[in-house]
Amino acid sequence: MRDREVLNTAAEVFARQGYAAATVQQVADELGILKGSIYYYIKTKEDLLFRLLEEVHEDLDKRIAEVAALEDEDALERLERYVRIQTEYTLANLTKISVYYDNLDQLSQPNRKVILARRKVHEDFVVDLVLRGQAEGSIDDQRDARLIAYSIFSTIIWPYRWYRPRGRIKAADVVEGCVEFILRGVAPARRS
Amino acid sequence: MRDREVLNTAAEVFARQGYAAATVQQVADELGILKGSIYYYIKTKEDLLFRLLEEVHEDLDKRIAEVAALEDEDALERLERYVRIQTEYTLANLTKISVYYDNLDQLSQPNRKVILARRKVHEDFVVDLVLRGQAEGSIDDQRDARLIAYSIFSTIIWPYRWYRPRGRIKAADVVEGCVEFILRGVAPARRS
Repeated sequence: MRDREVLNTAAEVFARQGYAAATVQQVADELGILKGSIYYYIKTKEDLLFRLLEEVHEDLDKRIAEVAALEDEDALERLERYVRIQTEYTLANLTKISVYYDNLDQLSQPNRKVILARRKVHEDFVVDLVLRGQAEGSIDDQRDARLIAYSIFSTIIWPYRWYRPRGRIKAADVVEGCVEFILRGVAPARRS
Repeated sequence: MRDREVLNTAAEVFARQGYAAATVQQVADELGILKGSIYYYIKTKEDLLFRLLEEVHEDLDKRIAEVAALEDEDALERLERYVRIQTEYTLANLTKISVYYDNLDQLSQPNRKVILARRKVHEDFVVDLVLRGQAEGSIDDQRDARLIAYSIFSTIIWPYRWYRPRGRIKAADVVEGCVEFILRGVAPARRS
């Protein structure tokens, strides 16, 4: 039994039952193991939620590192890569992302602080990309960089609310749609 | 005691306690009235949530009607007006919007269907605006109109997740930022 399998199953149970109503027993049943075996990994239900949210940030951090490694590309090219891989991550991890956003407030204060600190690092990475784009002239410098970053986040995260893998709109089209919307959305005003 | 006051207070209690844990008694206490007086308005806690979500749609419908009444303006001008007034609504009603998005799934099936049907009407209005803009050449017709509409919704709704009335970024700047991001985001590719 691997960690990731336990956390994926916990995500499914939390998404289906709601975190407040879900029990560690249900997660164990779904995995087909004894509850005692889960307590080998975690001590409380909150540990499951916390580890799940940490895992999301670990996944995202790896993707950010890929973008940060693009040393020869300018800010707009890096932003495009960022948007593409983050949107793909959202679409491939709908359950985990919904548990993340719907249950962050359920964490106790110390755990919540850890997650918010990791989120801040992620957010600052994107703000920094926007600032570089503004300095390079490819991103509108008349708007606040953090406000632009928030609009970028809204576009790449929101699909978890409506996207359905077997729906009419295909994942690849969602990714391209988000890339187009964001790259044009951040552009400077045309000089006339 | 007016309906709206009861619903605003219910929204605050639901947002603070979580809908599942909140009680009609708490809403009554917060209003400074007897629980029996609330039952004059509603029969169950779910009635409160349902009426609250219906109220959001009534508010939004009024704003849509304003945009629909702009007969002399083209699709892009109407879209701008739509984005402006909807973003203002989000920022002025953070608690209600968060209760709306965080608790829609708590409604029983018949009530949920009513809300989803109202949402569909709203969504179709925006898709129709996008289709008109595509026909007029002001909105990119290489992208699916509904996908563009979803990107628009993400931008105007997401601020409920991060905007704080006394924060560094002012409401007027958020509205302008969303307008700029969306109007550029939907634009056709520059012909080169």
